[in-house]
Amino acid sequence: MSDLWDVDPIPFVGTSDLRQGLGFRYYQPERVVAGRPMKDWLRFAVAYWHTFDQRLVDPFGEGTAQRPYDRFTDPMDLALAKVDYAFEFFAKLGVGYFCFHDRDLAPEGDTLRETNANLDRVVDRIEERMRDSGVKVLWNTSSLFTNARFVSGAATSPFAEIYAYAAGQLKHSLEIAKRLGAENYVFWGGREGYENLWNTDLKREQDHIARFFHMCVDYAREIGLDAQFLIEPKPKEPATHQYDFDAATAIAFLQAHDLVGDFKLNLEGNHANLAGHTYAHEIRVARAAGMLGSLDANQGDKLIGWDIDEFPSDLSETTAVMWEVLDEGGIGPHGGLNFDAKPRRTSFLAEDLFRGHIVGMDSYAAGLLVAAKLHEDRVIEDLVSQRYGSFDAGIGATVEDGSATLAALEAHALDVPQAELLASTRSDHLESVKATLNNYLVAALAEA
Amino acid sequence: MSDLWDVDPIPFVGTSDLRQGLGFRYYQPERVVAGRPMKDWLRFAVAYWHTFDQRLVDPFGEGTAQRPYDRFTDPMDLALAKVDYAFEFFAKLGVGYFCFHDRDLAPEGDTLRETNANLDRVVDRIEERMRDSGVKVLWNTSSLFTNARFVSGAATSPFAEIYAYAAGQLKHSLEIAKRLGAENYVFWGGREGYENLWNTDLKREQDHIARFFHMCVDYAREIGLDAQFLIEPKPKEPATHQYDFDAATAIAFLQAHDLVGDFKLNLEGNHANLAGHTYAHEIRVARAAGMLGSLDANQGDKLIGWDIDEFPSDLSETTAVMWEVLDEGGIGPHGGLNFDAKPRRTSFLAEDLFRGHIVGMDSYAAGLLVAAKLHEDRVIEDLVSQRYGSFDAGIGATVEDGSATLAALEAHALDVPQAELLASTRSDHLESVKATLNNYLVAALAEA
Amino acid sequence: MSDLWDVDPIPFVGTSDLRQGLGFRYYQPERVVAGRPMKDWLRFAVAYWHTFDQRLVDPFGEGTAQRPYDRFTDPMDLALAKVDYAFEFFAKLGVGYFCFHDRDLAPEGDTLRETNANLDRVVDRIEERMRDSGVKVLWNTSSLFTNARFVSGAATSPFAEIYAYAAGQLKHSLEIAKRLGAENYVFWGGREGYENLWNTDLKREQDHIARFFHMCVDYAREIGLDAQFLIEPKPKEPATHQYDFDAATAIAFLQAHDLVGDFKLNLEGNHANLAGHTYAHEIRVARAAGMLGSLDANQGDKLIGWDIDEFPSDLSETTAVMWEVLDEGGIGPHGGLNFDAKPRRTSFLAEDLFRGHIVGMDSYAAGLLVAAKLHEDRVIEDLVSQRYGSFDAGIGATVEDGSATLAALEAHALDVPQAELLASTRSDHLESVKATLNNYLVAALAEA
Amino acid sequence: MSDLWDVDPIPFVGTSDLRQGLGFRYYQPERVVAGRPMKDWLRFAVAYWHTFDQRLVDPFGEGTAQRPYDRFTDPMDLALAKVDYAFEFFAKLGVGYFCFHDRDLAPEGDTLRETNANLDRVVDRIEERMRDSGVKVLWNTSSLFTNARFVSGAATSPFAEIYAYAAGQLKHSLEIAKRLGAENYVFWGGREGYENLWNTDLKREQDHIARFFHMCVDYAREIGLDAQFLIEPKPKEPATHQYDFDAATAIAFLQAHDLVGDFKLNLEGNHANLAGHTYAHEIRVARAAGMLGSLDANQGDKLIGWDIDEFPSDLSETTAVMWEVLDEGGIGPHGGLNFDAKPRRTSFLAEDLFRGHIVGMDSYAAGLLVAAKLHEDRVIEDLVSQRYGSFDAGIGATVEDGSATLAALEAHALDVPQAELLASTRSDHLESVKATLNNYLVAALAEA
Repeated sequence: MSDLWDVDPIPFVGTSDLRQGLGFRYYQPERVVAGRPMKDWLRFAVAYWHTFDQRLVDPFGEGTAQRPYDRFTDPMDLALAKVDYAFEFFAKLGVGYFCFHDRDLAPEGDTLRETNANLDRVVDRIEERMRDSGVKVLWNTSSLFTNARFVSGAATSPFAEIYAYAAGQLKHSLEIAKRLGAENYVFWGGREGYENLWNTDLKREQDHIARFFHMCVDYAREIGLDAQFLIEPKPKEPATHQYDFDAATAIAFLQAHDLVGDFKLNLEGNHANLAGHTYAHEIRVARAAGMLGSLDANQGDKLIGWDIDEFPSDLSETTAVMWEVLDEGGIGPHGGLNFDAKPRRTSFLAEDLFRGHIVGMDSYAAGLLVAAKLHEDRVIEDLVSQRYGSFDAGIGATVEDGSATLAALEAHALDVPQAELLASTRSDHLESVKATLNNYLVAALAEA
Repeated sequence: MSDLWDVDPIPFVGTSDLRQGLGFRYYQPERVVAGRPMKDWLRFAVAYWHTFDQRLVDPFGEGTAQRPYDRFTDPMDLALAKVDYAFEFFAKLGVGYFCFHDRDLAPEGDTLRETNANLDRVVDRIEERMRDSGVKVLWNTSSLFTNARFVSGAATSPFAEIYAYAAGQLKHSLEIAKRLGAENYVFWGGREGYENLWNTDLKREQDHIARFFHMCVDYAREIGLDAQFLIEPKPKEPATHQYDFDAATAIAFLQAHDLVGDFKLNLEGNHANLAGHTYAHEIRVARAAGMLGSLDANQGDKLIGWDIDEFPSDLSETTAVMWEVLDEGGIGPHGGLNFDAKPRRTSFLAEDLFRGHIVGMDSYAAGLLVAAKLHEDRVIEDLVSQRYGSFDAGIGATVEDGSATLAALEAHALDVPQAELLASTRSDHLESVKATLNNYLVAALAEA
Repeated sequence: MSDLWDVDPIPFVGTSDLRQGLGFRYYQPERVVAGRPMKDWLRFAVAYWHTFDQRLVDPFGEGTAQRPYDRFTDPMDLALAKVDYAFEFFAKLGVGYFCFHDRDLAPEGDTLRETNANLDRVVDRIEERMRDSGVKVLWNTSSLFTNARFVSGAATSPFAEIYAYAAGQLKHSLEIAKRLGAENYVFWGGREGYENLWNTDLKREQDHIARFFHMCVDYAREIGLDAQFLIEPKPKEPATHQYDFDAATAIAFLQAHDLVGDFKLNLEGNHANLAGHTYAHEIRVARAAGMLGSLDANQGDKLIGWDIDEFPSDLSETTAVMWEVLDEGGIGPHGGLNFDAKPRRTSFLAEDLFRGHIVGMDSYAAGLLVAAKLHEDRVIEDLVSQRYGSFDAGIGATVEDGSATLAALEAHALDVPQAELLASTRSDHLESVKATLNNYLVAALAEA
Repeated sequence: MSDLWDVDPIPFVGTSDLRQGLGFRYYQPERVVAGRPMKDWLRFAVAYWHTFDQRLVDPFGEGTAQRPYDRFTDPMDLALAKVDYAFEFFAKLGVGYFCFHDRDLAPEGDTLRETNANLDRVVDRIEERMRDSGVKVLWNTSSLFTNARFVSGAATSPFAEIYAYAAGQLKHSLEIAKRLGAENYVFWGGREGYENLWNTDLKREQDHIARFFHMCVDYAREIGLDAQFLIEPKPKEPATHQYDFDAATAIAFLQAHDLVGDFKLNLEGNHANLAGHTYAHEIRVARAAGMLGSLDANQGDKLIGWDIDEFPSDLSETTAVMWEVLDEGGIGPHGGLNFDAKPRRTSFLAEDLFRGHIVGMDSYAAGLLVAAKLHEDRVIEDLVSQRYGSFDAGIGATVEDGSATLAALEAHALDVPQAELLASTRSDHLESVKATLNNYLVAALAEA
C-alpha cells in the first residue's frame, strides 16, 4: 500500500522557501496555540468526493484529472482500490478525518439492495483501514441528488416512491455512520428545493422533509447512533431555490418543525457567499443560536455566481473564521474543517490534490495563528466591550435586566438635546480597525 | 382644497387608447372579481415619503422633483400644506389608504418633546382630513434611521442613550397609530444591522431589539392599540448586513425571541430581489408560516444591485403576487398594497406621481384579473394536486399520517428496480407551463 | 424515417386552448407581418447540441433525458441515427435551419485525422438529408473547449501544440461550412480567457487569437467560403474571465486587430444578462457599430449567476428584441434565431424538446407581432424623435453638423438662468411608457 | 493656517504598535523601492469631494460628518476656508497631489457666468496655496451630473440647451486645468448613459459625446493645455446603463470615434468590481491597449451591489495593482493614485479622514513592497515565460512571426495522438501559486 501516490509524505518546511512546494509552512499538528495543539483546533478532513472521485469536469468540458488509479476499469475494483489510495493520501498529508457520501464509495446496482451490497463491500475495506490508521470519519452523508430518480428532490420529491427510496437509502447510510463511528451526520439539501414555484407545494414539501428528519432522529436513537446531525445550508444550485438557503433559513425551519435539539449546522464559505453573506457572518449567526456544528472549509469567488469550491487561500477569511472558532472555544465538540474543495480544472495532476490540501491546511493554520494573537491581545474583545459599555450600567442596564419600558425610556429621552445625543454616539474608526487586522496578520505570520 | 394638483381626478378609461395617459385601463374599484370588489382585494395605499417628500435625489445628484408646494419655505407651513395636497391626491387617485413614517409628516425639533409637538400639530390636521374623506391609515411607522443620531442603529445601537431615544420616539408613534386607527404598524429595520462584523456583538444587539419589540407589544396592549405589528425584511442597505435579511430570517428571529404571535411580515418586491428571491417566493414563505401581513408593492431591476423602488409594471410578477393572495383568500385581514415606489428621477413632474400610481394600480388590477382566471380554471391547483397525488394514498399517505418509519420505507423500496423508479417520476413540462401562464395573461387582459 | 419521434407534426392551433399543448399559438410561417412572412423575420434554427446531444446533466447530477435513440450503443451508429432523428424533428417542428459544433455530430478518434473521418461520414448523411428536406445550416462552429486537451484554451492556449491542433480542427470545420452552405460561421470563445490573471499573458494570448482569426479569414477566402463570420460574446464560464465579455468588448478586440470588416456578432440573451446587460442592450450596441450578425434566442434567470439557456418565454424581452430587429430591417442578411436552449432537467421527456421549441417560437412570433404594432403606430419612433428634437435645428444642429466649438457653445450658455435650463429639460414620463408597452403587448396578442 | 485640524502631522511609526493609530506603518516617501522613491511609484492624491465636501449622507440618512469648518455658514466663506483646511490636510498627511471637480470648490450661481466667477475666486486662493506648498493637481474634472439640469445627461443629454451649457462649463474647467498645471484631465461619464433603452437613441447620444470630446481636444490644443485626457469607466449608477461600462467598452468607443491618441483611462477598483471584474483585470486590459493613464485607489465590497468607495485595505488587491504598475514601469508619465474614497458613515470624526488616508497609503505602500519582492525574484515573470515557452520556437514561433497558416498547422497536428496532446498541456499548480503570493506578502511586510 505504500507509494500509491508518487508523492512523499508532506513535511513541515516552515518559511524556508517562499515559492510554495510540497511542504507545510504553518501547519504543525502538535504545536500548541491558544492552549491546545493545532490539530485539535483544526480537525481537518479530506472530502472523498472532490479528492478521489472528482474528474474536474465542468458544464463545458470533460474531466481533466489524471489519477494514479485511472487504470482500473471495473467499477468495484476501482472502488476498492480507491480506499487504499485514500488512506495513503490521509497518511501522507497527515490528516485525521475524512467525509463521504454513500455514492462516493461504490457504484449503484439496479436496486437499493444491490447498491447497499456494493457499498458494504467497500465499507468493509474502509473499516479495516480506519482500524489500521486511526483515521476517523468526521461525517458521512447520503447522495440524494445525483441519480436521475432524484430529479425533483428526494425527501421533497413530489413522488412518494422516490421519497420511500430516499428513506431507505438514508437508513443504510445511518447504519454506516454507526458502524464507522462517524462524529457527525450531514444533510445537505441536494435537490430539496424547487425549480419553479408555480408547480410547487412548498409547505407540503417542507412538511415531508421535516417528517423525514424526524424519522432519521428516531432511527438514530433506535440504533444508538450518537453522531451529531447537521444541516448544510446552500442558497441555489442545483435547484433554482434551495430550502436551506442560509443559516438563518435553516434555523427557522428547524425551529418551526421541532428539530432544534437534534440538529446543528455545517457551514460552507462558498455557500455563504452565494447567499450574499460572508463566511464569518454565517458562523456568527449559527453561534448566536447555539447551532455551530462543523465547517466546510472552502472559498468562493465573489465575482462568480456559482459554487466553485476553491481550496481556502484567503488569509483574511481564514482569520475571521478561526477568530469565531477561538471565541467559541472550538468548532464544537464534534466539529472539524472538511475540505469541500477541489483543485482548479487546470491543476489536473494527482500532485495538485496534495498542493490544494496544503494550501488549505496552511491557510487555516495561519488563520489560527493570527486569530490567536488577536485573542491574546484582546483586540476585538476590548473593542466590542467598550463599544457596548453603555449597556453595562444606568439606563442601558435596565434594557438588559428587563425592567425598561417604553414609558421609562421616553421619560429619560424626552428632553435630551440633539447635540447631547450626537455626543453619545462614538466613531468606530473602522478604517483603522481594518489596518489593525492587517497588522496582526503580518505580525503573527512573521513570528510563525 | 380643490385643484391643488393641476390634474383631473383619474378616470377609468378602459382600453380605448393604447398610449397610456392619465386614466385607468384595468382598475375599477367596484368591479367584482373572484367574488369581491377589486378594491377589497387591492387595498392600495400611497406612501407619504415617496410621494410627497421624495425630491428624487440620488447619491450623484440633487433633487429634480417639481412639486406644487415647493413655494412653501417655512417647514411647518410646508408640513401642514402637504397634508392638504396629500388628501386631494388620494381623492383624485381614488385610493383609500396611506402609510407614513413619523418623520415624513413634520420637521424635528431639538428635543423629542419638541419633535412630538411638531408632529402632533400635523397629525391634528391629518385626523381632520381622514374624518372628512374616509381615507384610512394602512400602517404607520417610525423613522429610526434618517437622523445622524441613529448612525449605528436604534434598537440595536451600541449606545444606550440612542436606544432610549428610539424607545421614546416609538412610544409616541404607537400613540399616533392608536389615535388614527392604523390597521398595521410596521417595523422596517432601518439601520438595525451591522456595518462590520468585527466590531459587532450580534447576539447582544439582537437581544436588545427583541426586548424593544416586547416593550412595544406591551405598550400597545396597555393603550389598547390593536394594529397588526409587521416586520419588513430587507437584506442590505443601508447597513452592510441588515438583521431582517428576508422572510425566513425574520421568522427565525421572531421564533427565537417568542414574538411569533405578535408579528407578521410586510413584504416588498425589490427587497426580495436584493435577497436573491422572487417576490412570490417571499410571500409563499410567509404564507407557509402563517405570517403574511401586508405587501409593499414595488419592483426592482434584477440587473441593479440596490433598492430602486420602481412602480410595479411587470405583469408576470403582479400575476404571481395576486395568485398568492387569491390562494390565501386575501392579503390577510389587515393587509394592503402600499406603493413603496417613486417615479424615476427623469420623471420629475408632479403629474408623474399620478402616472406612477396609475401604472402600479393598473398592473396589480391586471395581475388580479389574470390570477382570477387561472384560479377559476384551477390551472395551478390541478397541476399541483396531480403532481403530489402519490402522497394522497398508499405509501405516500403513511408519510403524511405520521406512521412511516425509515424501516418501513426501506422495506418498500429495497427491491424496486431503477426503471420502475424512473417511471414513477414525471416530467413537469415546465416549458409549457410558462406558455400557459402567458396565454392566461393575454386572454384575461384582452377580456378586461 | 417517419415517426421516429412519437409526436405528430406541430400544428398551428391559435388561441383555442389556453393550456399550452403541442401546437403553435402565434407562429404561422407564411403569415405576413410588417411586410414579410413571419418565417423571414424569424429564421429559427434548432441547436444540435442542446436538442439532440444534451443529456440534461448538471454539476450535481447525471442526465435525466429520455430520448428515442437511447437504444443505440455504438457511437457511430448513434451519430448517424441522430441525423435522421434531427431532420424529422426539423420537419415536424417546421423549422428551416439548424446549427452545430463539429463535435456534436460525431465521436472523436485518437487523432484529428480519425476524428475528421468520423465527422465526414456523418456530414455525408447530413448533406443528403439537407438536399431532401431543404433545411439549411444557419451556422456551424467548432468545439474547441470540451476535450481535455483544451483545458487552458485553444487559440489562446499557452501550449503551441494545442494551438496547432485547434487550427487544424478549425480548418476542417470551415470546409464543412463550405460544403453544407452554412450562412454563418460562429466563434464562441469556449475557454479563450483566463482562470487566473497571475499566470496569464493576456496580450500575448489576444495576439495569438487575432492571428488565428486572420488565418481563418484567409482560409475562407482561399476555399471560397462566403459565410458571415460571427463572434459570440460571453462574460464568464467556463473561464473565470472570457475575452469576449460582451458586445462592446468583442468590438474593441476586432477594432484593435483589424478584423472589423470580416466579423459581426452573434448575441445571446443569457450571456447578456451574465455581463450585467439586457438582451436589447447588447443588440443595440451591435447595431450602433453595424455589427449585428445573428441571435441566440434563449433567456436567463437574472437571480441565477450562471448560464441556464432557457427557452425564451418572456414576452417583454422578445418584444424588445424584435423591435430592434424591425428597426434594423431584419437581423441582417444572414442572421437567424438559433435556440441555444434546453428544457429544464425536470422536463426530461422527448416531447419536452418539442414543447420547449414551441414556447420559444411562439414567444418570438408574439414579440414580432407586438413590435410590429408598436412600429406601425410609430410609438417609439415618435417618442425618440421628439425627445431629441432640439438637435434638429438651432444650437443643437451645430453640434451635429460639426460647426460647434466649446467657445461658441459657452457663448450660447453663459447667461442662461437656471430656471430656463430646467425648463429646457423634459420629463420622460417613463412610468407611462412602461404601461404603453404593456398595453401594446396585450392588444397585439389579443388580435393575433 | 496651522492646526486647523486638531491632528498632528502624521509620522512614520513603523511596526511599533499593532493597533493602528495616527501613524504610517509602511509608507516612507523617500524610501527607495525597486529603484525609485516610494513617492514616485505612489503619487498619492486626495480627492477634494470625498475628503472635504462629503457629509457621509446615504440614501437613508442625513450626513454624520463632523468637520472643523462646520461653523461657516456663508457658502463662499466656507468654500474659501476649505481651501486652507485642504492644504493643511495635504501637508499633515504628506501628500503631494489633489483632484477636484469644479463644483467641489465653489457654489453655483444662477448663470454659468456667475458660477464661473465664484469658482475663479476659490481658484485664486488655491493657486496661491499651491505656490506656497508645492502641492500639485493630479487631475481636475467637471461635475456634469449633480445639478438637476443634467438629469438626462450632459454631453448625451437629449436637450441641446443642456449640451451647450455642459460645453461651456467644460471650457472653463479646461482653463482651470491649464491655469493650475493639472497633469491630467478626467472625464467620468456622470449621467452619460441611459435610464431606459426604449426612449434612448444610443447612437445619436454616442455621436454627440464623441463630438464633445473632439471639441475638448481642440480647445485644449488651442489654449496649450497638455494635461493627459482620461476616461473613467463605470458600469452602472447613476444611470441604469453607463456608456463607459468598463475599460474595454471605453476603448471600443475611443477607437470607433478616432479618439485613441488623445485619451487614456483612469481606472477605479470599485468600478471594476461593479462591472464584474477584478481591479487588476481592468488595469491589464488598459495596459494591453497602451491606455493606462491613472488610478482611482479605492476598494469595493463584492457582496454589495453599489459603489461604496472604501479606502483600500485589501493587501492582496494592492499587491496585484502595484505588480501591474511595476511591470509597466510606472502608472504612466502622468498617473497617480487618487483616493476616490470616503470613511464609513460610522467613522464620522474629522480624524477619521486622516485614518482613512493612512490605511489607504499604507496599503498601497505595502502592495508596492510585496510586488517589488515578487519582481525581484522574478516569480511571475518566470512562471509566465515558462508557461508560454512553446511559442518561442518551433511551430509556436510560426504563429508569432506570422508565417503560420491553417493548412500548415493542420499538417502538424493531423496525426498527433491524444496522449501526446495531453502531455503537451501542463498543470498550472494554481493552488500553490496562491500560496506563493501569500508567502511573499508576509515575507515582504515582515521585512518592512
